[in-house]
Amino acid sequence: MFPGCPFKILEKPKFVYEGKWLKMREVRFRKSDSSAEQVWESVHRRTVPQSKPDAVVVLATLHRNGKKYFILIKQYRIPMGGTCLEFPAGLIEEGETIEAAGLRELKEETGYTATKILSCTKGKQSLSPDLADESISIMLVEVDGDAPENKNLKQDLDDGEIIEVVLVECEKLLSYIEFICTEVYVDSMVYTFALGMNYAQHLF
Amino acid sequence: MFPGCPFKILEKPKFVYEGKWLKMREVRFRKSDSSAEQVWESVHRRTVPQSKPDAVVVLATLHRNGKKYFILIKQYRIPMGGTCLEFPAGLIEEGETIEAAGLRELKEETGYTATKILSCTKGKQSLSPDLADESISIMLVEVDGDAPENKNLKQDLDDGEIIEVVLVECEKLLSYIEFICTEVYVDSMVYTFALGMNYAQHLF
Repeated sequence: MFPGCPFKILEKPKFVYEGKWLKMREVRFRKSDSSAEQVWESVHRRTVPQSKPDAVVVLATLHRNGKKYFILIKQYRIPMGGTCLEFPAGLIEEGETIEAAGLRELKEETGYTATKILSCTKGKQSLSPDLADESISIMLVEVDGDAPENKNLKQDLDDGEIIEVVLVECEKLLSYIEFICTEVYVDSMVYTFALGMNYAQHLF
Repeated sequence: MFPGCPFKILEKPKFVYEGKWLKMREVRFRKSDSSAEQVWESVHRRTVPQSKPDAVVVLATLHRNGKKYFILIKQYRIPMGGTCLEFPAGLIEEGETIEAAGLRELKEETGYTATKILSCTKGKQSLSPDLADESISIMLVEVDGDAPENKNLKQDLDDGEIIEVVLVECEKLLSYIEFICTEVYVDSMVYTFALGMNYAQHLF
């Protein structure tokens, strides 16, 4: 269960609470034989395929009238108690490929149909590894905003979703984020992506 | 408690489990008056100052012998059951500024002393807003690797930490990540930062 773990795991992990979707786990461990016993609490989804990431995050660039935009979403997040600016994303269903899940989530959450898959990250990327085992894959796609399928957009939202689509001109992403980051929670992936863009402009 | 919430919150949020560090919350809600009742489960830290982000993430560039490196860390994460490649980071203590926490965590986790704070994000950035209320601020710093304080490096790790410092040449970040992403969990912030750098090189 803990291959390559440098800590001494003292007993089988224990699920101390099981909700409808989430469960809480306790792991008792020591850093070394002479260290004090500690407990690491974490949260896990109840129903998730183990071989794939839990979710796919879609980094979509919209090309329209010669301009380029990132397709972002604003949604109220009950766990946060506020509105978040995020990349479109969602859980990968059983038997679904990462790519199919990404195309489906982009379409459901924003109405846009991707016209080209550029890349999809391999492995699993951690989101909050101090707290949870949740993992994602990141898919980069292009959306032709002038294509007929992207003319009459229609979201197809779940009962737990109320989503506003936000288009941000690619080269203005960081300044847009800096403008709104005290009003909404900018997701850390959106923010680090924008910081990476800004960093590269000064580095290269 | 839920200002600006577009959902109908049906009762006061209920903490259904309290561990040593984490607690699990249930919120009953409807999307609209005619929608079915739903429950949103989430996880929250027990002891966290509400006005500041929970943690600071340090994006540190090391300058040494005319070369530039990102200072990353590899650490085994019990919640993930595996090793993660991450930016140095840590919880902000009570009464501590974000900047002070960032400098302290960088020094404790990697041994390096930052010589210049470049910027620090405002507001709070979400990490896993579907699941938790955890939030961060992102601090960019420079580290002069030729300075005397960065000659004899010494980590100062907690009992729950075993951390390996990894230096990656800045322009090789994405190729390094792509090389190791099936062996370790690359944190989503590290990956999106690298994708942002790569994106900008092709965009501008």
